[in-house]
Amino acid sequence: MAEKKVAKAKESSNGGAKPELEKMGKNIIEEIKKGENPRFVATTRTRSNILYDAKVGYLRLGKNEEERSFLNVAQSKKFMQTMAIAAKCHQFLTQNLHTTIRGLYYQLKFSLGEDVDESIFDEQAESNPLIEDLEVSLGVKREGLNLNANRKGVLAGNMKVLDTFGNEKVEIDCSKMGRSGWQIPSDVDNDIEFVDIKAKYVLVVEKDALWQRLNEDNFWKTENIILITPQGQASRGTRRIIRKLADKGLPIYVFTDSDAWGWYIYWTIKTGSINLAYIGSAVATPEARFIGVTMSDLDKYTFLNKLTIAASEVDVKRAQEMLNYEWIKAHKEWVVELERMIKSKKKLEQDALQGPRLTFVGEYIKDKIKNKEVLP
Amino acid sequence: MAEKKVAKAKESSNGGAKPELEKMGKNIIEEIKKGENPRFVATTRTRSNILYDAKVGYLRLGKNEEERSFLNVAQSKKFMQTMAIAAKCHQFLTQNLHTTIRGLYYQLKFSLGEDVDESIFDEQAESNPLIEDLEVSLGVKREGLNLNANRKGVLAGNMKVLDTFGNEKVEIDCSKMGRSGWQIPSDVDNDIEFVDIKAKYVLVVEKDALWQRLNEDNFWKTENIILITPQGQASRGTRRIIRKLADKGLPIYVFTDSDAWGWYIYWTIKTGSINLAYIGSAVATPEARFIGVTMSDLDKYTFLNKLTIAASEVDVKRAQEMLNYEWIKAHKEWVVELERMIKSKKKLEQDALQGPRLTFVGEYIKDKIKNKEVLP
Repeated sequence: MAEKKVAKAKESSNGGAKPELEKMGKNIIEEIKKGENPRFVATTRTRSNILYDAKVGYLRLGKNEEERSFLNVAQSKKFMQTMAIAAKCHQFLTQNLHTTIRGLYYQLKFSLGEDVDESIFDEQAESNPLIEDLEVSLGVKREGLNLNANRKGVLAGNMKVLDTFGNEKVEIDCSKMGRSGWQIPSDVDNDIEFVDIKAKYVLVVEKDALWQRLNEDNFWKTENIILITPQGQASRGTRRIIRKLADKGLPIYVFTDSDAWGWYIYWTIKTGSINLAYIGSAVATPEARFIGVTMSDLDKYTFLNKLTIAASEVDVKRAQEMLNYEWIKAHKEWVVELERMIKSKKKLEQDALQGPRLTFVGEYIKDKIKNKEVLP
Repeated sequence: MAEKKVAKAKESSNGGAKPELEKMGKNIIEEIKKGENPRFVATTRTRSNILYDAKVGYLRLGKNEEERSFLNVAQSKKFMQTMAIAAKCHQFLTQNLHTTIRGLYYQLKFSLGEDVDESIFDEQAESNPLIEDLEVSLGVKREGLNLNANRKGVLAGNMKVLDTFGNEKVEIDCSKMGRSGWQIPSDVDNDIEFVDIKAKYVLVVEKDALWQRLNEDNFWKTENIILITPQGQASRGTRRIIRKLADKGLPIYVFTDSDAWGWYIYWTIKTGSINLAYIGSAVATPEARFIGVTMSDLDKYTFLNKLTIAASEVDVKRAQEMLNYEWIKAHKEWVVELERMIKSKKKLEQDALQGPRLTFVGEYIKDKIKNKEVLP
């Protein structure tokens, strides 16, 4: 790895976040000077304003907006609290220091000082939705406000990460990470670059155990791909890096169990999720395709019939629910899959592919890719 | 990072595991040839044979052993199953390929072939305890049998990892991992070396968020330490690497919340746990010391009084239970801590140290180390 001293490393490259915060602050000061009621506008994030947009293929917010103003008894406290959050985030950006929404909460709770009994916030449950208000109002993700989310997910493949962090810029070669892989951080947008990406496609593997299996086989190297595991449900950072790799033109294939949880993981990567609908376009990858395992695999890879396990009630119920989705109805391949599970009450884990030999997992993936056997 | 082709990379360096398996197999064949009842001995892992050994400071198995023999109606099936597991692990070692206990289960389930209705195993719950039988009988951890456990935990600091993996040996510099850190793998013993360790001590930080905070401050660099987060409860791999770093003479300090879960994380790192008592000496670090946060911090760092949160019933109940432990009774510092939580019904999170300024976390650690304010 190379190490380079970076001039002005303490100057954050966090896109528009700081100017956006300053613009918002100036607008509010203007309004006050004019004797007006200071206010800002945030898109509503209630369920009624979250929609699956078939045209773009992901969950996003609708057009409903809410105005938050200071001279409104019901909103006054929240308005003040949101301004306090904005001021703190501006400070973090100026300092080029990161924390979490919990760290921010503690700063806010302390912000009136230890000699004052009152706090701006009493519970983190108060500050969390106001952070989202700020995100949608400014059009900036919380990562851009120097607030880290939980991280999870690992990557290996022919690509390099240029990470400007602390006082240095490090170059991490994701093809030289051995058994460990490169851990996907919370923020994959600011002060970080992905270069020298040489890959035919991206394979997203639900389980870390299967990722390790393929990594040990050098699968990403021999197949020339980027190998990612979200380690279960994908974190914000992992969803975002998948989106970014798709933006570079790489096909995205998702490889999960054939069960309710596996489908949910796929669906979340593909279309986003209710709670992240407010940043849907940044974290959803509608181009993603499902590579397996599928119930139809039982016909082609007959040994798997011996390795199915009982579907849980949750699996069957979820499959029945999914059959009612318009999108599923329009994609018969999925109807076949779901009906097969419901009828047989069996499911299939990706781990089962190791049954005949450990290296079969990679053979399976190659076979699927070669024969273009993927689900939409 | 340097890359070197390693001669015979496909030949595993897995210590004694393969010869041990072969020795066991030969013994059993000998017994059969002599017309004797083939058998092997495993230390019992029932609760009655697990003890906290005050002399060594960790949970370990007692002396009770069980004989498993083939010509015993109650044991015959299990004996055969254990031999099947041993044969599979021997095969994995020969192939130099790894899997998980779930992957092993699927191989065993398939092992009679797809045309035979019978399976050697019907449930993974059958194979798991037999793997432990093998581990204790051979004196080899499952990682040495090429069975990976779940991995979790991240490390940064002045040390290098030499990881022989797939066909290559990679050198990973843990001081050049940027925001991500090096992900601690399942197996930190076989085909892997830790070199150029330059550190005064190891700091184990319960929460990944706090690890990231200290990592961003370059704390491991300015303080010259190894910075680890188990990301909650420590995995086998993380406990093992802490043990190995302690073996190199580095002091181990553990930094958690002051609550039931934080104490449990510390206690597990220090003394091991019931379910891993059978490998107690390999994963426990009795030398570990508790650096905080403590209830006593409220006296010295008075701002924290504003940032305590309500202790849950679980927290209080656990504190009351711990007061009955002989070890706690003998360590008055802990009695003070526990009684203070029980009385105040308050607890303290490590995140709260960010209240006055984000960088205070590091100042706190330095202060504690300087003043040797640690609990046993």
